Amino acid sequence: MQKALIVFSGGMDSTVALYDALKKYSHVETLSFHYGSKHNDREHEHALKTCNTLGVGNTLIDLGFMGQYFQSDLLKSGGDIPEGHYEEETMKSTVVPFRNGIMLSVAAGLAESREMSVLVLGNHYGDHAIYPDCRAEFIDPMARAIKAGTYAEVELHSPFCKMTKTDIAKRGAELNVDFSLTWSCYKGGEKQCGRCSTCFERREAFYDSGIPDPTDYLDKTDFEILREEYEV
Amino acid sequence: MQKALIVFSGGMDSTVALYDALKKYSHVETLSFHYGSKHNDREHEHALKTCNTLGVGNTLIDLGFMGQYFQSDLLKSGGDIPEGHYEEETMKSTVVPFRNGIMLSVAAGLAESREMSVLVLGNHYGDHAIYPDCRAEFIDPMARAIKAGTYAEVELHSPFCKMTKTDIAKRGAELNVDFSLTWSCYKGGEKQCGRCSTCFERREAFYDSGIPDPTDYLDKTDFEILREEYEV
Repeated sequence: MQKALIVFSGGMDSTVALYDALKKYSHVETLSFHYGSKHNDREHEHALKTCNTLGVGNTLIDLGFMGQYFQSDLLKSGGDIPEGHYEEETMKSTVVPFRNGIMLSVAAGLAESREMSVLVLGNHYGDHAIYPDCRAEFIDPMARAIKAGTYAEVELHSPFCKMTKTDIAKRGAELNVDFSLTWSCYKGGEKQCGRCSTCFERREAFYDSGIPDPTDYLDKTDFEILREEYEV
Repeated sequence: MQKALIVFSGGMDSTVALYDALKKYSHVETLSFHYGSKHNDREHEHALKTCNTLGVGNTLIDLGFMGQYFQSDLLKSGGDIPEGHYEEETMKSTVVPFRNGIMLSVAAGLAESREMSVLVLGNHYGDHAIYPDCRAEFIDPMARAIKAGTYAEVELHSPFCKMTKTDIAKRGAELNVDFSLTWSCYKGGEKQCGRCSTCFERREAFYDSGIPDPTDYLDKTDFEILREEYEV
């Protein structure tokens, strides 16, 4: 069996990817990044809770240059996080240029250094609308570049590439994921806001899958009402 | 005309790539990295001399995690730099896992943030022997991943991919490159050692192209004698 390094934010997708990986690989480690986003501290705090619960190691790598030089409202150096649904044009301001490419490249180098032969990325089908570096058109050549560019021919596995976030919530429930330990909100406040694009998507995934949402959102507006407001 | 970001170490190859780019693109900037190699300070000192001479901007990005977590004798955290020719098995210890993948990914994100549409990497044919992340099998899918993973569809140009280092020296001479400002030596001492794999390759490129080598090496052994010693 293979050793796998999971790119792990502490959000729903990568947490389900981690639980899923523990079933598939002989050894699993997680890799997280600080890249200057508004919610970095909050999501890593949650990432560590999940790792500690599962007894899985975590490496935190600093990519501070992204906060310093890159343009994105997701970053502390950027503007306010817009509210609304991901599909909207305004949400593009939260894209961090080539973030997944950078994270996967660093993960490839670390995996090669640690003699691990698999990388896992929890990107999903719904990410594709605004994130160019979540699409299969990016993932497929990136996987070939990583395989060709490492002695160990490191493989990139993207188990949710053809699944929606609702499917991921269902898969997580099957795996008994503790969703209360996951963090999504881009705003990085004391509580998850419940209204930014990623909170909306998180709530939608729970709602549509029929899985109880354990999250204590700051804005407790009923999801059906929020969905009408956002006209999705 | 396009704006181009050059991945720039201050060595021979990327310096010739920079001079070459100044002929081809409307605006050129350089990007250098600190990644904890033994020769990082020395090569960046030289990189800045070339940038200042040409009036070209340079951004230095810290990838300190590589020195901290990655395994390679090229790094300060690794063992001694071996002497001899690149082709030798021992030279593999100087490969930094997926270094070019990481540098190109960061460059892609920075180019997108700065609205530059081209990346230039000065990798060459001779790099392929031991570096998996210099080969066309890596460069081609990486270029596709960068194009698909950025809104601006950033292009990766690799002008020397099918050239030898001797060809690059010739191209540099045509462009009046000041080779005395370039640094190659992996050891990072006061002077370039003249005997490590990259010094050997540098000396070989000057010797074989018939271009005078302006470098004041620590070991001044005549190149023909060194070549016999190394049995190349």
